[in-house]
Amino acid sequence: MMTGAIRAILFDTFGTTVDWQGSMTATAQRLGAERGIDADWAGLVKEWRARYKPAIKPVREGKRPWTGFDELHREELDTIVKKYGAGKLSNTDRDILTYSWHFLQPWPEVVPALYRLKNKFIVGPLSNGTVRQMVDLARYGDLPWDVVFGADLFRTYKPDPKLYQGAAKLLDLKSGQILLVAAHNEDLQAANKQGLQTCFVHRPTEDPKAESDFTYIVDDFEHLARMLGAV
Amino acid sequence: MMTGAIRAILFDTFGTTVDWQGSMTATAQRLGAERGIDADWAGLVKEWRARYKPAIKPVREGKRPWTGFDELHREELDTIVKKYGAGKLSNTDRDILTYSWHFLQPWPEVVPALYRLKNKFIVGPLSNGTVRQMVDLARYGDLPWDVVFGADLFRTYKPDPKLYQGAAKLLDLKSGQILLVAAHNEDLQAANKQGLQTCFVHRPTEDPKAESDFTYIVDDFEHLARMLGAV
Repeated sequence: MMTGAIRAILFDTFGTTVDWQGSMTATAQRLGAERGIDADWAGLVKEWRARYKPAIKPVREGKRPWTGFDELHREELDTIVKKYGAGKLSNTDRDILTYSWHFLQPWPEVVPALYRLKNKFIVGPLSNGTVRQMVDLARYGDLPWDVVFGADLFRTYKPDPKLYQGAAKLLDLKSGQILLVAAHNEDLQAANKQGLQTCFVHRPTEDPKAESDFTYIVDDFEHLARMLGAV
Repeated sequence: MMTGAIRAILFDTFGTTVDWQGSMTATAQRLGAERGIDADWAGLVKEWRARYKPAIKPVREGKRPWTGFDELHREELDTIVKKYGAGKLSNTDRDILTYSWHFLQPWPEVVPALYRLKNKFIVGPLSNGTVRQMVDLARYGDLPWDVVFGADLFRTYKPDPKLYQGAAKLLDLKSGQILLVAAHNEDLQAANKQGLQTCFVHRPTEDPKAESDFTYIVDDFEHLARMLGAV
């Protein structure tokens, strides 16, 4: 495969860089214990996340005006609380739980690997979350981003080409000088169509395997750093 | 003066955070020595910078389509090279010199003060430069930004209200929760009109004194960090 020199590496966030499932389940269980609400928190978090794709679709298709992740997350939470035995959560607690999507643990190898990659490349998230979410996640998890790209900059969601093209334009790079790292085939396939280089990373909670001929396929960010000679 | 809690501090860049005059003069002199071009480099750099305000005006007023700093800088350089005895600079050297605006030294106290401020507040530039310029300046000068706001995100220039409002919106903050730091009265006065808190910082190359009743007036970023209890 012909590949030019990489100048910037952009990372999908939820599932790829941070462990939403472990973090949100622990947070919800803790809140439930404090409030004496004995719900199926693990089940709730899993369905909450699963509902994000149908939720962003009408926005991406222009059928709904721009709506960011915080608002969508809050709506979806309201829809599913009863099903999982959490209907007694107050409005304030629902706000707190929704805002917990801003504070998620990076996967264990992520931070040291990002510091290594940052020595050689511009690094940043390219996420369907908001800019503020990216800022909060970075401050919480010590993610040493050079720049943060959230969906609210482009007012649509991945896999809309606008995000990949828009990030390349703001970085003043050709799309082939950018490597997108994600644990999701759909994201990488869309990036590839826009000329970006692609790296599939295996994560236990995300797509089980690479379904296209991506530029790189790695076990984790440390593996990527090694392959790119970032020490 | 009534002031609410600050959550984010945004910094003007050229002159406020980095010493454009010292850095660009040194770079131009070095290039001139290498090429054997004995020009008035200090004078050239000073007029180059002075021309940026008239250059951005038609863009801000919608009389010229969006044009970023790199392109404007290059045009202005072509206009003034002969006047300062640098007409022999090749096109490539003019590109190099123009791109040097991405690599400027921070004022001496800036980096340690920013690390302290970052412990308490979201920090980032709000600049008329581009996002890529902000990324390059940060990587060159070790500026620990949480987020970078360049004028190309908003496709207009300060003091257009869109930049102050747009940054507040992307940070999901009320404008009063943001403090803008600048060495320029015009920038701070415009920010104040949009409800931001304001901090005038004295810099030897910029506005000699504060001409309004700003929230803070400081000697440098270290002084600001002390006033805000950022240790």
